Amino acid sequence: MKITSAKVFVGGPNKNYVTLKIMTSEGIYGVGDATLNNRETLPAHYLEEYLIPCLVGMDPRNSEDIWQYFYRGAYFRRGPIAMAAFGAIDMALWDIKGKIAGLPVYQLLGGKSRDGAMLYAHASGNDLEDLMDSIAYYREQGYQAVRVQCGIPGMPKGGGYAVADKGDTQNYITNFTGNGPKIETWNTDKYMRYMPDALGEIRDRFGWDMKLLHDVHHRLLPREAAQFAKEVEQHRLYWLEDPTPAEDQDALAFIRQHSTTPLAIGEVFNSIYDCNKLIQSNLIDFIRVSATYAGGITSLKRIVDLAGLHNVQTGFHGAPSHSPISMAAQAHINAWAPNFGIQEYLVLGTTECDALFPSEHKAQKGFFYVSDAPGLGVDFDEQEAGRYEFKRGYHPVARLEDGTVWNY
Amino acid sequence: MKITSAKVFVGGPNKNYVTLKIMTSEGIYGVGDATLNNRETLPAHYLEEYLIPCLVGMDPRNSEDIWQYFYRGAYFRRGPIAMAAFGAIDMALWDIKGKIAGLPVYQLLGGKSRDGAMLYAHASGNDLEDLMDSIAYYREQGYQAVRVQCGIPGMPKGGGYAVADKGDTQNYITNFTGNGPKIETWNTDKYMRYMPDALGEIRDRFGWDMKLLHDVHHRLLPREAAQFAKEVEQHRLYWLEDPTPAEDQDALAFIRQHSTTPLAIGEVFNSIYDCNKLIQSNLIDFIRVSATYAGGITSLKRIVDLAGLHNVQTGFHGAPSHSPISMAAQAHINAWAPNFGIQEYLVLGTTECDALFPSEHKAQKGFFYVSDAPGLGVDFDEQEAGRYEFKRGYHPVARLEDGTVWNY
Amino acid sequence: MKITSAKVFVGGPNKNYVTLKIMTSEGIYGVGDATLNNRETLPAHYLEEYLIPCLVGMDPRNSEDIWQYFYRGAYFRRGPIAMAAFGAIDMALWDIKGKIAGLPVYQLLGGKSRDGAMLYAHASGNDLEDLMDSIAYYREQGYQAVRVQCGIPGMPKGGGYAVADKGDTQNYITNFTGNGPKIETWNTDKYMRYMPDALGEIRDRFGWDMKLLHDVHHRLLPREAAQFAKEVEQHRLYWLEDPTPAEDQDALAFIRQHSTTPLAIGEVFNSIYDCNKLIQSNLIDFIRVSATYAGGITSLKRIVDLAGLHNVQTGFHGAPSHSPISMAAQAHINAWAPNFGIQEYLVLGTTECDALFPSEHKAQKGFFYVSDAPGLGVDFDEQEAGRYEFKRGYHPVARLEDGTVWNY
Amino acid sequence: MKITSAKVFVGGPNKNYVTLKIMTSEGIYGVGDATLNNRETLPAHYLEEYLIPCLVGMDPRNSEDIWQYFYRGAYFRRGPIAMAAFGAIDMALWDIKGKIAGLPVYQLLGGKSRDGAMLYAHASGNDLEDLMDSIAYYREQGYQAVRVQCGIPGMPKGGGYAVADKGDTQNYITNFTGNGPKIETWNTDKYMRYMPDALGEIRDRFGWDMKLLHDVHHRLLPREAAQFAKEVEQHRLYWLEDPTPAEDQDALAFIRQHSTTPLAIGEVFNSIYDCNKLIQSNLIDFIRVSATYAGGITSLKRIVDLAGLHNVQTGFHGAPSHSPISMAAQAHINAWAPNFGIQEYLVLGTTECDALFPSEHKAQKGFFYVSDAPGLGVDFDEQEAGRYEFKRGYHPVARLEDGTVWNY
Repeated sequence: MKITSAKVFVGGPNKNYVTLKIMTSEGIYGVGDATLNNRETLPAHYLEEYLIPCLVGMDPRNSEDIWQYFYRGAYFRRGPIAMAAFGAIDMALWDIKGKIAGLPVYQLLGGKSRDGAMLYAHASGNDLEDLMDSIAYYREQGYQAVRVQCGIPGMPKGGGYAVADKGDTQNYITNFTGNGPKIETWNTDKYMRYMPDALGEIRDRFGWDMKLLHDVHHRLLPREAAQFAKEVEQHRLYWLEDPTPAEDQDALAFIRQHSTTPLAIGEVFNSIYDCNKLIQSNLIDFIRVSATYAGGITSLKRIVDLAGLHNVQTGFHGAPSHSPISMAAQAHINAWAPNFGIQEYLVLGTTECDALFPSEHKAQKGFFYVSDAPGLGVDFDEQEAGRYEFKRGYHPVARLEDGTVWNY
Repeated sequence: MKITSAKVFVGGPNKNYVTLKIMTSEGIYGVGDATLNNRETLPAHYLEEYLIPCLVGMDPRNSEDIWQYFYRGAYFRRGPIAMAAFGAIDMALWDIKGKIAGLPVYQLLGGKSRDGAMLYAHASGNDLEDLMDSIAYYREQGYQAVRVQCGIPGMPKGGGYAVADKGDTQNYITNFTGNGPKIETWNTDKYMRYMPDALGEIRDRFGWDMKLLHDVHHRLLPREAAQFAKEVEQHRLYWLEDPTPAEDQDALAFIRQHSTTPLAIGEVFNSIYDCNKLIQSNLIDFIRVSATYAGGITSLKRIVDLAGLHNVQTGFHGAPSHSPISMAAQAHINAWAPNFGIQEYLVLGTTECDALFPSEHKAQKGFFYVSDAPGLGVDFDEQEAGRYEFKRGYHPVARLEDGTVWNY
Repeated sequence: MKITSAKVFVGGPNKNYVTLKIMTSEGIYGVGDATLNNRETLPAHYLEEYLIPCLVGMDPRNSEDIWQYFYRGAYFRRGPIAMAAFGAIDMALWDIKGKIAGLPVYQLLGGKSRDGAMLYAHASGNDLEDLMDSIAYYREQGYQAVRVQCGIPGMPKGGGYAVADKGDTQNYITNFTGNGPKIETWNTDKYMRYMPDALGEIRDRFGWDMKLLHDVHHRLLPREAAQFAKEVEQHRLYWLEDPTPAEDQDALAFIRQHSTTPLAIGEVFNSIYDCNKLIQSNLIDFIRVSATYAGGITSLKRIVDLAGLHNVQTGFHGAPSHSPISMAAQAHINAWAPNFGIQEYLVLGTTECDALFPSEHKAQKGFFYVSDAPGLGVDFDEQEAGRYEFKRGYHPVARLEDGTVWNY
Repeated sequence: MKITSAKVFVGGPNKNYVTLKIMTSEGIYGVGDATLNNRETLPAHYLEEYLIPCLVGMDPRNSEDIWQYFYRGAYFRRGPIAMAAFGAIDMALWDIKGKIAGLPVYQLLGGKSRDGAMLYAHASGNDLEDLMDSIAYYREQGYQAVRVQCGIPGMPKGGGYAVADKGDTQNYITNFTGNGPKIETWNTDKYMRYMPDALGEIRDRFGWDMKLLHDVHHRLLPREAAQFAKEVEQHRLYWLEDPTPAEDQDALAFIRQHSTTPLAIGEVFNSIYDCNKLIQSNLIDFIRVSATYAGGITSLKRIVDLAGLHNVQTGFHGAPSHSPISMAAQAHINAWAPNFGIQEYLVLGTTECDALFPSEHKAQKGFFYVSDAPGLGVDFDEQEAGRYEFKRGYHPVARLEDGTVWNY
C-alpha cells in the first residue's frame, strides 16, 4: 500500500482552514488539519513544497516511521509551522488506518473510557452585565463549564482581550481579518483590580455548580499572576489559563507557591519538549495542546500519557482555532484518554462548515459525542472547498498605554 | 523616516540564499538574511505574506519595538521559520541604523575587542587518510582550528555524516539537492569504536597546536555521549559538538558529570529560551546560535551577553549554511563580543558569491576581518540575483541498520 | 580617533555632582556622571589618579574593550567607587559614540519602545497628615506613582527614614551635609505596628488609581519583612523597596514565600553579579540599579536584558542621587528597554541645575521625555561649574533605642 | 577614653604602604594597614575625607560598634576601597585594645593554638629550570610549602603570569610601577598543555614531602579549570589557587565534580558575603581573604569562624601585597584559629622595611612566630616614613593573542 498523492486546501467559511488530503493506492484516503491561526499559508507551503514530494510512495500504515522521518529529517525541529504540517499528515494517516481497520480511531487508541466528553463554552462581554447574559445563554444550552472574559472598565471599548476573543457568536469564530494587527491597549492595574471581584460576582450569580474558567491570555508577569491566582482562589475556578507568557516556565513555581488555583497552559506549545517540564514539575493541572500544532495524534498521545503519569489532565485547545478534522482527532483522544479533563468547544453546526466537513460527530448540552464511523469520522468536500479562498488575518498586538509592546 | 517597501529574493550560486531588502523614505536601504537550510522558501513566504505588509510605514530606527511587535505578535512564538524571518528584518534594520550613523555595526555594539576573529574549517574524508589530507589542506591555508569528520569503516561508502558535511570544497557549500532526503545508515557501535582512536591519530599527526573540533551531529544517546566524551578527553578537543539531540537538555548533565570535554551546542536553537538553561546550568562551553534563525542581532546579542555572564563563549554556526549577510552580522558581533570564542568558517571567495553579495569583509589565514563600511558592510546585487532561482534540497535522514529512523 | 584628555569636576547646586568630560582628537567630547552619594570625591580621585592616565591615547569608540580593560584591570573588582568611575567613562564614551553617529543614544540601543517613561515622586511627612499633603501635591503635579514615607509615632521628631528622604522639595535634593552622620533612632516594633495601616489609609484617601510605593530602607529582618509584605498585600503596593539588607539574598526567599507584594531591590548594587541571583531565582520584581554606580550603559544594558529574560522590570535608582548626566543615560535606556517598569524621578527644573547641565530632556506630568539630540543629549557648562565646590556630607546612621547600630 | 586624632601615610620601600595611626586621649595609639595594591591612595582618601572626621571623639574600645557604624553607614557597602579603610581602623582599634590590656592581640582572640604558623614561599622562573632553582632556594631556607609559577614556552619572554608575580626576590615585592598597565599576552592552550606536566616534574624532583601550591590567577574558564584540576590530581597539590574569575561562583561546582584537587580562593574578596556561598556549599578548601581589604580583624575573625564550621581552612593572602601591620594582624589570627591552614609569606627582613615597621615578629625556616608584645606588636616610625612617597603603579592587563581582554 502506497501513498499516491496528496493535496492541500486553504480556505473555509470565515476561517482559513488548512486541509490535507492523502490518497493511497487502495483508494482509501485520509484527511488532516494544518490550520495555524493567522499563519495558515505557511504549513500549507511546508506541506506542498517539502513534505508531499517525500510522502508519495510511502506506506501510509507506517505512521510512526513517517512521523519520525519528518520530525528528525527537518533538522531545524519544532516550531508551530512545521509541527502543524507534520500534524496534518499524522491525522490523515490515522484516518487511513482507521478506514483500513473499519474502526473509529478511538478503538485503535484503546477504546472508549467515557460516553461524552465535557466541553466548555466561551462567554464574553463588553462589560460584566453583557458577560452575564452570555454565560446565561451557554448555561441554557446545557454547558456545565464556561470560560468567562469581559471588558475591563477604563480600557478602550471594543478592544481588550475579552472582545477580541468573542468574535462572531454565531460561528464561534474569532474575526482576525484585516491588513495588519489591530492594536489593543492593555492596562494590568485595571484588570487586576476589576477581574477578581467580577469572577466573584459571576460565581454568586451562577452558583457553585458551574465550572468557571478564565483566560489571562499571557498578560501578567509572574508575580502579578501569583497575586491574581491567590485572590481568585476563593471563587474556585475550574482553571486559570495562560497566566504568564509561556517562555519563562520557572516563573510558574512562584504562582504555585501562593495558590492552589488550577492552571491550564499549552495552547501555543508544539511538542512534548515544550510540555514536559511543566508536567514533571507539577506546575500545571491541565495541558492545553492541540492535535494540529502539537504534531498530530502520534505526538499528542505521548503528551497525554506523560500528563497522566503526573496526574495532569487534558484540556485541549479547541476550535474555533482549528478545523473539524482536528476537532475529530481530539475527540477520539478525548474518548479514550484515562486522564481526560475537559475540551474547549468545537466547531459544529453551521451549515457551511457541515457542508465542507461532513461528519456524525455531535455536540449536545455541553458534551461531545464522537462518531463511530471508521477513521476520524470526518470528510472533506473538495467541491464545497472551491467556494473559499485564503483571507489574510492577524492576531492583535497588545500595547501598554505608553506604547510598550505587551503579550497578546 | 519610514519603511517604504521590502522585497525578498530566493536563490544563489549553489545555495538558496533568502535575502530581504528593506527600502526607506530616506533612500537608505538595509539587507537581511533569512536563509533556512532546505526550508528556504518558508521564511520567504513568512516575510512576503505576513510581515512585509506590516513593515511598510514603520520607522526603521525602532528595531527593538519592531522585533517585539513581530515576536509577540506571532502568537505562536519561536520556531526556526518565524525566527529566520524576524532575524532577516532585524539585520536589515541594524544595517540601516549603521548607515544612518555612518558607522559599521560593530561600533554600535561597543566597538572592537579584537582585530581578527578565529575561524574553523571543515575537514572531512571518506576514510581517515582522506580526512588527513583534508586537514593538511586547511592547515596549509593557515587555519589553526579544524573540525574533523570521517567515514566510519563498516558503514556504507559515500554516505555517513562525514561526507554529507563535506560537499564541494571549492565553494564550501554542502550539496543537499535532490527530490527527497538521502537515506544514510548509521551504526553507533562502529562509530563509538572507531572515532575516538581516529581522533587520537589525528592529534598525533597534527600535534597539540591544532585546535581540533568534532561534530557528533546528534547521533548519540546521553550515556553514549558521556562515554565518548570521556574517552576522547585525552585528545583535548577544542570542542565536541552536538553530542545528543538538542531537545533533552537535562541529559547533558550526565555527560558533564563524566568528562571535561568542551561541549558546543545550539545551531538549531531559535531563541534565548532554547539557550538559557544550558548556559545558566553550566552544561555547555560554546553557544552555537546564528544571527539568522536565532532572530537577528537584537536577539543574538542578548544570548551572547547571557553566555558571557556564565563564562560560556561564542562559536556561532556559520556559512556554508547562511548567506554573506548573516556572515557579516555575526562578524560584527564577533568583533565586539568580550566572550567571543571561534566562528565556523564563512562564505567568501567565489566569484559568483562575491558578485551577488559585494563586501570588503575578508577571511585570511583562518581569521576573519570585519569591514569598516557603514552598516553591515555587505550589499546585494539584484541584477546578479536574477541569474538564480530556488532549487529544492533536503537534509539527509539517518536510519539504523534495522531501518529505525535516527537523528541526523 | 583618540582620547586626548579628560577632566573631573566635583560640585553643583546643593549636591556634589561628579562630572567627567572626555576630549577627543576630533573635537567631539563626551560627559559622564560619577556621583556617589556622600563619597563623591572618591570616584573623582579614582578617575584622576588611576584611570585618566590610561584613557589618554585610547580609541573612544572601543567602549566595550575599555570597559573590560578597566574592570578586569582593577584586579580588586566591583565595589561602588570603582564602578562609579567606570560608569562615568562608559557614559562619556556612549555620548561620544552618539555624537559621532549623529544619533541620540537610544537609537544605538534599538530605538524607542515608548514615548514617555513613567516617573515616581517622593512624598514624605513628619506624620501621616503631613505625608498626605505631600502626596496630594505630587498627584496635582500629575504623578501617577508616588513613593510614600512618613514619621512613625513614638520615634523621635525630625528624624526617621521619612524625613531624611524628604529634603528640600524645591530642589528634590536630599540634604546630607554636616560634619558627620546624623544619628537616627529606629524602632522596628513601632514601624511594623504603624506603617501597614498608614498605607491602608493612604490607599483609602487616594484610591486605587495611584501607584503606591514604599521604601523600607533595609530596616527589617527577613522574617519581619515577610510579615510586613504579607500584611500590606491588601493595599496593593506598586512595590515594596529594600525590605532587608541587600547582602543576605537567600533571605528573600522567605519573603516571597509569604506574599505576592512586589519587591524592588538594587540601588546599592554595583554589578550584574550583585543582581543575577535575585533575577534568576525570581526573588524580585524590579531591579533598581543605576547607570552611575552599576558601571555605565554597557553594564546596565546587560542587567536590563537579564532582567527581561526573567520578566523582571526596571525601576532605576534616580536623582536626586545622581546628576542629569546619569539621568540622561537612564532616560535613553528607559526609552528603549522592552522591560521598562518605572523610573525614580529625576533632577530637572531648577535654574542652577539647568545652567550647569543644559539639555532638552523634559519631565512633564509624571513622565520623562528623552531628548533627540545626538549622544546623551546633556551638556556640562564648565564656567558654571566654577561656582561650586565639594561640600562633605554623610548618610545618617540608624541606631536602635539601646544604641545598637542598625541598617540605614 | 576618646580618639583624639588620626593620620594616614602613603609610601614605603618599593611599595605604597597605606598606614593609619590613631591617637587617643590616654596617649595610647594604634596602627592599621589600608594598603590596596595599585589603588593605594583611595583608601587613604576614604580615611582622610570621610572616616577620620567621624572617628575623632569616639571611644576606641568600641571596635565592634565602630565597625558597624562605618560599614552600615557607608550606604554603598562593600567594595575593596571601603573595606580596606574600615580594615585599617579596625586593626588600629585592636592594637589599642591589646595595649590597654597589656596583651598581644592573640590573647584577646582566645590565646595560642600553635607555636609557629606554616608559611608558603613564592618560587618562580622564566622557565622550568629557573623555577626549579627558585624552589630549591626556598627549600634550603626551610620552607615546607612553596607556590610554583613558571613561564610557559611559546608565551612572550619576560611576561606571563609567572614573571609578573616574581618581582624582586630580595624584597619579595612585585614591581608594578609604570605609567599604565603592562599588557601581558595570555594563551590558555599553551598553559594547559605545559603546566600539568611541569608540576609533575617538580613533584618528581622535590618529592612528596614538599607542599606544592600553584596559582592559576583567574586565567581559566570553568571547564578548563575542571580539566586542569583533574589532570594535576595525581601530583597532589596542597592547593590550586584562583582557577577561575571570582564572580561566577556557581561555576566552581563543575570543577569540584571532576577532581578532589584542593581549591584556594578569596584574595580579592572584601566581605563575608563574598565568601559564604563558597564555604557553605563546600566549593573551596582554603579561604584566602586578608585582614586589610576584608575589613580588619573583626570581619576576618567572623570569616574564619564560618570557615571552621564547614571544615574550610585558612590560607590568608599575604604580603608582599600588604604591610607588616596587616601581616601582624593575620599572625595573631593564625596563632589562634583552630582551622588555620597556611599563610602566604610575609614581608620581613629588609632593613628599610624593619626600620619603618619595627617589631619582634619572626619568620624562621618557613614558620611565622607571633610577637608577644601588647597589641599588634608592630610599630610605625613616622620619621622613617618621611623618606617615602606614593609612586603610582598598575596591575598588568592580560590580553589574548587576538587582543581580547582577559582576566589577570
